[in-house]
Amino acid sequence: MKQRCECTYAFQQGTRDYNPKQMAIREKVFNTIISSFKRHGAETIDTPVFELKETLTGKYGEDSKLIYDLKDQGGELLSLRYDLTVPFARYLAMNKITNIKRYHIAKVYRRDNPAMTRGRYREFYQCDFDIAGQYDAMIPDAECLKIVYEILSQLDLGDFCIKVNDRRILDGMFAVCGVPDDKFRTICSTVDKLDKVPWEEVKKEMVNEKGLSEDAADQIGEYVSMRGGMDLAERLLQDQKMSQSKQACAGLSDIKLLFSYMHLFQITDKVVFDLSLARGLDYYTGVIYEAVLTQAGVAAVSSETQNGAAGEESVSVGSVAGGGRYDGLVGMFDPKGRKVPCVGVSIGIERIFSIMEQKAEASAEKIRTTEVQIMVASAQKNLLEERLRLVTELWNAGIKAEVMYKKNPKLLSQLQHCEESGIPLVAILGEQELKDQVVKLRVVATREEVCSEHCTPAVCTCSCACINTRDGSIQLSCLIPILQLLTMPISFHTLFLLLQHAMGCLCSGNSVPCSWHVAQSYVEPQCRSHSIPFFFSPSACHGLPFLSQ
Amino acid sequence: MKQRCECTYAFQQGTRDYNPKQMAIREKVFNTIISSFKRHGAETIDTPVFELKETLTGKYGEDSKLIYDLKDQGGELLSLRYDLTVPFARYLAMNKITNIKRYHIAKVYRRDNPAMTRGRYREFYQCDFDIAGQYDAMIPDAECLKIVYEILSQLDLGDFCIKVNDRRILDGMFAVCGVPDDKFRTICSTVDKLDKVPWEEVKKEMVNEKGLSEDAADQIGEYVSMRGGMDLAERLLQDQKMSQSKQACAGLSDIKLLFSYMHLFQITDKVVFDLSLARGLDYYTGVIYEAVLTQAGVAAVSSETQNGAAGEESVSVGSVAGGGRYDGLVGMFDPKGRKVPCVGVSIGIERIFSIMEQKAEASAEKIRTTEVQIMVASAQKNLLEERLRLVTELWNAGIKAEVMYKKNPKLLSQLQHCEESGIPLVAILGEQELKDQVVKLRVVATREEVCSEHCTPAVCTCSCACINTRDGSIQLSCLIPILQLLTMPISFHTLFLLLQHAMGCLCSGNSVPCSWHVAQSYVEPQCRSHSIPFFFSPSACHGLPFLSQ
Repeated sequence: MKQRCECTYAFQQGTRDYNPKQMAIREKVFNTIISSFKRHGAETIDTPVFELKETLTGKYGEDSKLIYDLKDQGGELLSLRYDLTVPFARYLAMNKITNIKRYHIAKVYRRDNPAMTRGRYREFYQCDFDIAGQYDAMIPDAECLKIVYEILSQLDLGDFCIKVNDRRILDGMFAVCGVPDDKFRTICSTVDKLDKVPWEEVKKEMVNEKGLSEDAADQIGEYVSMRGGMDLAERLLQDQKMSQSKQACAGLSDIKLLFSYMHLFQITDKVVFDLSLARGLDYYTGVIYEAVLTQAGVAAVSSETQNGAAGEESVSVGSVAGGGRYDGLVGMFDPKGRKVPCVGVSIGIERIFSIMEQKAEASAEKIRTTEVQIMVASAQKNLLEERLRLVTELWNAGIKAEVMYKKNPKLLSQLQHCEESGIPLVAILGEQELKDQVVKLRVVATREEVCSEHCTPAVCTCSCACINTRDGSIQLSCLIPILQLLTMPISFHTLFLLLQHAMGCLCSGNSVPCSWHVAQSYVEPQCRSHSIPFFFSPSACHGLPFLSQ
Repeated sequence: MKQRCECTYAFQQGTRDYNPKQMAIREKVFNTIISSFKRHGAETIDTPVFELKETLTGKYGEDSKLIYDLKDQGGELLSLRYDLTVPFARYLAMNKITNIKRYHIAKVYRRDNPAMTRGRYREFYQCDFDIAGQYDAMIPDAECLKIVYEILSQLDLGDFCIKVNDRRILDGMFAVCGVPDDKFRTICSTVDKLDKVPWEEVKKEMVNEKGLSEDAADQIGEYVSMRGGMDLAERLLQDQKMSQSKQACAGLSDIKLLFSYMHLFQITDKVVFDLSLARGLDYYTGVIYEAVLTQAGVAAVSSETQNGAAGEESVSVGSVAGGGRYDGLVGMFDPKGRKVPCVGVSIGIERIFSIMEQKAEASAEKIRTTEVQIMVASAQKNLLEERLRLVTELWNAGIKAEVMYKKNPKLLSQLQHCEESGIPLVAILGEQELKDQVVKLRVVATREEVCSEHCTPAVCTCSCACINTRDGSIQLSCLIPILQLLTMPISFHTLFLLLQHAMGCLCSGNSVPCSWHVAQSYVEPQCRSHSIPFFFSPSACHGLPFLSQ
């Protein structure tokens, strides 16, 4: 078999593998995004990775050339999905759904030149949230922006800014500036480049390539430099030229309404009404928006800033979310052309991943790629059976546990595995422990054995005690409840204290309420909402399966 | 735009959309599978949906014709992945990884004829768990089987059976039965059909199509009818013919060892050593296994039983998991041919989905597709602003909440939405409530208002009380802690009692410990491990943002 050059393999395809560390970061980012979507009541759907080619045709303007086609092997002509919006619209029309709030997280495919633009992949994730349905103006639109705000705040990526505009304002502006009707879309595409190239070049393209008059271009230039809030919308409604366009006025009134809702949603501090925002896709019909990270600190992550807006006070690192209203798209898939108004947002998370990855590498904190709570280890030879028996008990009790796949692993190599993969606890079996029906439970990081220094020997002499304070071993039957306790976010120190006090309570003949008081006093404040279960009643300690029966 | 016939759209492609209900079921199944994988310490990786065509070539035997190719649009020749095992092996070789325990859940693609075999799709999920590394024999292999056992038990799909065999036993058997070396693979493929067609047909194919002698076929026929446990492996090790093959003996010894580990893992009750198990794929080198559901009750789900093993005491509904050892695959991708021993299992969940879907439809229980906890509703007109303000408070506090996107929705339609989508609570705003700074919290299912009948009016007269017992309204500032409390799995009845008692405690001047006792007495037994947080201290009730300041 031929071998490819390993280092460039992923780039050749414009794709990449995710290793376990990257997956751990990805999972974290997804969890944040999904919680926000769920907090706002979204359902989720899934669609196939490929669609009929004709479904995608005529939806993406100039970018259609980037669609991946499947080989014609008989049957329909298929293409890989280019985004999640068009499949969503197809889904709504096909199932005659007229209102839904759904999210969809999946990979999309674009035959972009991966070598040209670093950090852009041919396969990448989109996280889409959309609201379909006939509702009162701007309420769902504002909720989409609230979601962008929540997600970008919670991911803690630094400062960000959400630009909003409206296709109707752009079209109205083009009309009053003297752009011929048939040039709206192409001029709009040119305006879309303003976040990457300076106005002079945009103007040059308008005049030289697209044949617009110098005067019209200059008028556009004046408008697209405007930024503001609700006040700007009010001012433009009074603007002599702009107010001549009914379309523009409708858009401006909606921007005002949008700002009033965003005010109630407490997000106006990050939102800017920006007339230069255009967005390339054909299907938008109303409000459009785009979120950019503005913190200079993360600028190094993106290579796209080189010819970007470097002269500005804060350096943009490119868009991390975008969307808008598309009231006509679903109708394109309906046999009778029935429209379903839609508004949505797509979180572009590849850039977010890059930033999170850089952050993780810069920080000292080790990322765990597994969730194993305990390693079952042996101190002597010939204990494979006993290890397998114990790990089985743990698995059956829902504990995340590992055992080395060797007959006679060295204790040191077992401990090293724990350290490398961040397993916090190790249960050590030895011949003496097996004879005494106990196990040593050791905290890997500190090498401390459970209960060693915190216990006064006097406490645990009665028969129901789990912990032998002389050598720090604990009765096997109590290992599982202790580990289940550990799934709560309490510190190990707290655990020791709890165990100690719980034992004390049991020994003195008190039962549960006493350990509740213990819990209350010792649980770390940030963990209060989890608190401590009832594990230390004698009945919970009894009746559990013993290691060897 | 041309419109496709809607009803057959999905089948034409051999793919399907998942609607929100199906997604809710899918999520549940995935969660069960992923927890098991994580419990066994697996990391996860992800690979692109397409691979270089040459990566997939020569790995799947006769099934290679089912691979989807991408159109040659310049650049490399690409194919959609056919399974997750080959990309995994490519990943290991490319990154020079010699040991890893990983899971991977993703879609794979096969150009099967979707009309021919109902329930089989061209795009479907696989859930793979694999252990790569040089370890002592059969320990990782047994863990894979433990995982299959766990997952199938937890999904509660009815009885199941895990068949195990070994490629070396099959090859040894072929050798001692007189099959020529170059016919091992093709005869193996024929044996693989035994779970679908009776022996007579299999024999016919061996003799008539593959040119095997009648005598050799009969000898094979004798062996492949054998089923048993460790005892069968022991018997075959003494078998005069079989014991002549070194390969078969190695396989049989390993089956014995496997059974001894499976015994420790407590899974032998579902495992059968079955010499007719062959599995089609080329890359297996050692132990192979396959899990089938055996319950007659679910037989209707699968259409494949028509010509299947209908004569048996329990009816097989086909394989839901399969895998085995493939020690040579990674070496095929390594420039120096370095081998990495691997063993793994793939859970085939499309069939599991179908069964779960059928079950869900048969049961009266309604599947929720969102997790919304509360709807913010209004009883009068012109309260949009107030609703948006309150829902913002809730979102900001992490509560899953919804509001209708209408300026003046009817109360009835707001309540209907709750009923339809299973939202348990509704917060109702009216003019009087706003004046009093309170909100009515109503349980949608029972129309009961919080605290209405359980409270004695005497309890809540002091200033820190959250609940006005006269009309069941609660102070707005207490809505959030109450809702946060509701994320714990306690019954609403319990909630009422808790609220009542907590209020009682606060009023009588007692503080937190008292409500702990309340919690202790009233939390449902099955929820004990969650317990109740400290919300009812006066300090928790104060300092929360009010609706209108």
